Amino acid sequence: MSGNSFGRIFRITTWGESHGRAVGVVVDGCPAGLALFAEDIQKELDRRRPGQSRASTSRREEDRVEILSGLFQDKTTGTPISLLVWNRDADSSAYDLLQNRPRPGHADYTYQMKYGIRDHRGGGRASARETVGRVAAGAVARKLLEQRGIEIAAYVTELGGVRAEIPPLDLMQLASIAESNAVRCPDPVAAERMLKRLEEVRKEGDSLGGMVEIVADGVPPGLGEPVFDKLDADLARALMGIGAVKAVEIGEGMECVGLKGSEMNDPLLWRDDRVVFDSNRAGGILGGISTGEPILCRIAVKPTPSVGRRQKTVDMAQREAAEIEIKGRHDPAIPPRIVPVAEAMVALVLADHMLRQRAARI
Amino acid sequence: MSGNSFGRIFRITTWGESHGRAVGVVVDGCPAGLALFAEDIQKELDRRRPGQSRASTSRREEDRVEILSGLFQDKTTGTPISLLVWNRDADSSAYDLLQNRPRPGHADYTYQMKYGIRDHRGGGRASARETVGRVAAGAVARKLLEQRGIEIAAYVTELGGVRAEIPPLDLMQLASIAESNAVRCPDPVAAERMLKRLEEVRKEGDSLGGMVEIVADGVPPGLGEPVFDKLDADLARALMGIGAVKAVEIGEGMECVGLKGSEMNDPLLWRDDRVVFDSNRAGGILGGISTGEPILCRIAVKPTPSVGRRQKTVDMAQREAAEIEIKGRHDPAIPPRIVPVAEAMVALVLADHMLRQRAARI
Amino acid sequence: MSGNSFGRIFRITTWGESHGRAVGVVVDGCPAGLALFAEDIQKELDRRRPGQSRASTSRREEDRVEILSGLFQDKTTGTPISLLVWNRDADSSAYDLLQNRPRPGHADYTYQMKYGIRDHRGGGRASARETVGRVAAGAVARKLLEQRGIEIAAYVTELGGVRAEIPPLDLMQLASIAESNAVRCPDPVAAERMLKRLEEVRKEGDSLGGMVEIVADGVPPGLGEPVFDKLDADLARALMGIGAVKAVEIGEGMECVGLKGSEMNDPLLWRDDRVVFDSNRAGGILGGISTGEPILCRIAVKPTPSVGRRQKTVDMAQREAAEIEIKGRHDPAIPPRIVPVAEAMVALVLADHMLRQRAARI
Amino acid sequence: MSGNSFGRIFRITTWGESHGRAVGVVVDGCPAGLALFAEDIQKELDRRRPGQSRASTSRREEDRVEILSGLFQDKTTGTPISLLVWNRDADSSAYDLLQNRPRPGHADYTYQMKYGIRDHRGGGRASARETVGRVAAGAVARKLLEQRGIEIAAYVTELGGVRAEIPPLDLMQLASIAESNAVRCPDPVAAERMLKRLEEVRKEGDSLGGMVEIVADGVPPGLGEPVFDKLDADLARALMGIGAVKAVEIGEGMECVGLKGSEMNDPLLWRDDRVVFDSNRAGGILGGISTGEPILCRIAVKPTPSVGRRQKTVDMAQREAAEIEIKGRHDPAIPPRIVPVAEAMVALVLADHMLRQRAARI
Repeated sequence: MSGNSFGRIFRITTWGESHGRAVGVVVDGCPAGLALFAEDIQKELDRRRPGQSRASTSRREEDRVEILSGLFQDKTTGTPISLLVWNRDADSSAYDLLQNRPRPGHADYTYQMKYGIRDHRGGGRASARETVGRVAAGAVARKLLEQRGIEIAAYVTELGGVRAEIPPLDLMQLASIAESNAVRCPDPVAAERMLKRLEEVRKEGDSLGGMVEIVADGVPPGLGEPVFDKLDADLARALMGIGAVKAVEIGEGMECVGLKGSEMNDPLLWRDDRVVFDSNRAGGILGGISTGEPILCRIAVKPTPSVGRRQKTVDMAQREAAEIEIKGRHDPAIPPRIVPVAEAMVALVLADHMLRQRAARI
Repeated sequence: MSGNSFGRIFRITTWGESHGRAVGVVVDGCPAGLALFAEDIQKELDRRRPGQSRASTSRREEDRVEILSGLFQDKTTGTPISLLVWNRDADSSAYDLLQNRPRPGHADYTYQMKYGIRDHRGGGRASARETVGRVAAGAVARKLLEQRGIEIAAYVTELGGVRAEIPPLDLMQLASIAESNAVRCPDPVAAERMLKRLEEVRKEGDSLGGMVEIVADGVPPGLGEPVFDKLDADLARALMGIGAVKAVEIGEGMECVGLKGSEMNDPLLWRDDRVVFDSNRAGGILGGISTGEPILCRIAVKPTPSVGRRQKTVDMAQREAAEIEIKGRHDPAIPPRIVPVAEAMVALVLADHMLRQRAARI
Repeated sequence: MSGNSFGRIFRITTWGESHGRAVGVVVDGCPAGLALFAEDIQKELDRRRPGQSRASTSRREEDRVEILSGLFQDKTTGTPISLLVWNRDADSSAYDLLQNRPRPGHADYTYQMKYGIRDHRGGGRASARETVGRVAAGAVARKLLEQRGIEIAAYVTELGGVRAEIPPLDLMQLASIAESNAVRCPDPVAAERMLKRLEEVRKEGDSLGGMVEIVADGVPPGLGEPVFDKLDADLARALMGIGAVKAVEIGEGMECVGLKGSEMNDPLLWRDDRVVFDSNRAGGILGGISTGEPILCRIAVKPTPSVGRRQKTVDMAQREAAEIEIKGRHDPAIPPRIVPVAEAMVALVLADHMLRQRAARI
Repeated sequence: MSGNSFGRIFRITTWGESHGRAVGVVVDGCPAGLALFAEDIQKELDRRRPGQSRASTSRREEDRVEILSGLFQDKTTGTPISLLVWNRDADSSAYDLLQNRPRPGHADYTYQMKYGIRDHRGGGRASARETVGRVAAGAVARKLLEQRGIEIAAYVTELGGVRAEIPPLDLMQLASIAESNAVRCPDPVAAERMLKRLEEVRKEGDSLGGMVEIVADGVPPGLGEPVFDKLDADLARALMGIGAVKAVEIGEGMECVGLKGSEMNDPLLWRDDRVVFDSNRAGGILGGISTGEPILCRIAVKPTPSVGRRQKTVDMAQREAAEIEIKGRHDPAIPPRIVPVAEAMVALVLADHMLRQRAARI
């Protein structure tokens, strides 16, 4: 029972392998009547695309989205929206040597054990190229959320030991600064140091991990479906399901371990004839339901497993110990490129829960 | 579209409120032919039950499970297994004052905003009592997993700033030590210090957060369904969906942020004519699929929000600022009691994925 | 992957065996704020209950519903509604002889082949007693639909070769006449002849088949989700999934085979500033979506398989040919008793699609 | 919550409009290791394609399937299989006049009422062209079923009042005769008369309804998931969800209404050391689970709603009564063309249940 669909009402199904003919996604359940243009999607795909900076791989893809169905006169019709991006620049030769030698830190071994067969070229389905579908679908979700005044942005807060100081700006300002540098960090000084660290580690043939923070502003109270489809649970699943993510935090996250209840609780205030919270340690979610405060998530991203050093592995055909040296193209750090993917996943979760909430009351 | 079901093939639906007549769960999709006794379930409910130690609330419930369907001659028949536990000791009076005053850190405000109505007594559906259904169903999942040699245990690794040192024992030994003390910590020295911290904080009318580690041994390679139902994604959802959990880690978790790729990757070895990993920083999962190494998860648990101190909140009927002081019964720390719940959730995920894997190959 | 849940948003899970401790259902996804009383459910269970007339079995059950969760001050809260009915009058002795001898026309053989084990007592899960859960949940769905002015009724149109003439009355009048006789037929003259046929066939130790028509009035246009969850498709599944149903018709049903397109098409008219249809051969559904006209379904119900005659079967323990004579309690015809079950299934489908439609437009 | 996916484990999602850029399907959950070639799919698409005979429309499409993902070295890999067929010959002009005038018997009015917007060109998503995705996915399901010795065939048994006599041949022989004539009828004499009726009615500018029988041979006992996902329930949904189908029968279907229990029950026999049934009135399904006998379904197909006569309708822009005369291309009868679609739907149901059954026992 495969897991290539995501969401209940706003539901996407992605498909495609790194070196196959194309990658794509079908978005089912987008409400009818939403104005949608190829540019809305292309904009996000361009942010996702590799080959844009020192911080990312040199693979070059045009990644032009084609909208094959679901729109009529630039509006959604309630029917499935099929989005496709052709794979053009796929060079499989570098991977041929790896066919029987699972790369450490990658999914090669586990796909083989699961399915008994795998498309090893470029990592196949386990490649980061799979995120094209997520980002394209996320752009549709975003369009829907924008209609309700919901904005989402992500940025890098730590990379290779360098921590950013997040300036006290509003979300779109933070995002704007982050987008202006190659590591997508809203602290320009830290960004420079991160880039330097990346350069060093690239020369060593190694890679770095980092942290990414994702924020959603304007989310109304009431989203999330206890007791299993809580908003934080679904966000955790969405984010942990991105390749390389090893931890997910909501609000204070790990920090809550060292706090007392009296410190952790966010007091409720009555202000302007409505409820607001005096702090947001909860990260905008209580009991699995949004509070109306900003949704705050953070993810820990492991260092790129494709390092340029000789590594120990096995040869599954020869059934013996072996070594590999990975050539091919790969980013020295994943966090800057994961930013639009994480935003997309959060957008997909929120769009789905926004629609689910419509059935909550008579 | 409510979220009271969990799992795809091994699928549970829980129901019940804290001060309603009963709580329960329906387990659908448990394979036929599994030997199952009330004792298998009761054993886990007893571990979950409050009122057992200094570390937990004084509420007393017998919590005897009744098996209402799905078994014939002590074996599962493939039909739904309905499990019920009556609520006996429900005193709602302490909650009446709170009806219009949302408790900070609780789901009172968000349930009200979501549904426009809520059963405020004992927290209603958002109460920890809801976990009775999870633990009962988890016991069934566990029975199924044991047949395949899969064992699951959880224990507290940090509480109120006290960190345990985990002795180098096998999983069942760790679990056995943890079960022998009131904080469920496998380090007896740390356990004593944790209890002391708890006593102090209880006197202050406050509460403490902590960390819990969950380990699954014996999981074969191949479980997990990319790209959205990855094993780590589903574990993250399962664990983040437990009340009070604010972060989930897999393997190295947050630590991966500071590592280089060459340090994070687990080398593969050829040993005894099969593949093993030289380390397990991945926590037993690569590309969302189990590697055959132990599955390692950790959760950050926030301090109990019900603290005995006067707190700022609002009165939603009067539409003004207000204060509350929570009486009632509550644990000064959640981690010891979350242990059987976290185990249950991991068991449910693994049982489901074990069955899903049966459809992976022709 | 078991199939004991039904519906996507308004979603039910039934459980229980004929001679187990109880039968029940969990209703998840009922919107919050719906006024609901035990009487609403009891009323439908009473209609379903056996032992009420010459046309049904002599088994006596009180069948009092217990509402275990999901309500607060007589309103739904958006949390799961757990409904339970105890099994009191279960006499399994008559079934002991049948344990290894599958009854022709029953599910005995197929359950054994599917699961390798079965609760043979009273037919176990395959018993008509399972419909208690459907009817109880259907009563909740009905309450929701009534709020929107949707009414559902079913009645017997043919039994043992006797066909009713349906008088040109409105739906509630038809239902009222049907409820006043033991065969639930809205044509009192035909009803008398049906009862006579039943008496005859009962003496022969045999049974009769029949037809039931189900009508839903007041359904707004727009319900149904192409291309697979069309309203007619979901109704067909709901109705074919009731035991003993062997055919489902929508609108003209089988009659459409002999019509020309010009005869089958329902002309659209502009009347009172809106669209109406000049006829309703489509049965209220076009392209899988409701038209606003009444929804018309008919089901063909096979004769009760439990006949009092000696029948050929096999002995699965002895692995040889065998004979059986079924004693026990059974109705000589199923259609009168299927009426409330068919209504419940249609109500469940409509309630679910009514909620699904809320997500159709921005 | 849209309905463009079908199946639980073997799960497909179709997309595309009649006059959009392409139509397609994503097959998720096909087990890894299945040999699959474009020819396997093309063969079925060719059978579905219009423009092949006197009995069908003159629209010409090449309908070449493109396999975009999910295969490696001609085997399935367990990842999603994306199949696409470009729309080449789409002439929308004939539909422009119809934009505001719903065609009687079509989904024009209901789509408009549901979504508030619709792609009117060629019927948009409600066009029979949508079945390209079903047939392509069905071809994959068929390949999987063939591995288990399961064969599926459908044929026309009645058209325009002409009933076929089905010769006592095995299924593949019947299919072979049916495929050899333009109405897909296994009785060559009846086929000629059907063609004559079609010619007559075409001249009248009218259309005819008919019956199609679908048979699956070699289905093992045990498939089907009570109590809601019974095999017959899922077949009914699958078949009723095909455009123009107004009734579904299993086994004796409507005929059971006139039978007595002693006539309807299929006796069990012990033969060759296993159970067989002495007749197959049940149509291969008891209690919603396959018996091991052939699965027999029949569908009633309404006459093509696009007739060449002037019809009454409304103008939704002018908000008044109106008339239309439909030009465009359309079949004078649907049953011959529905044959491969019905086979595909049955194949999809059986493939899904075959995989679901793998989880039925420990």
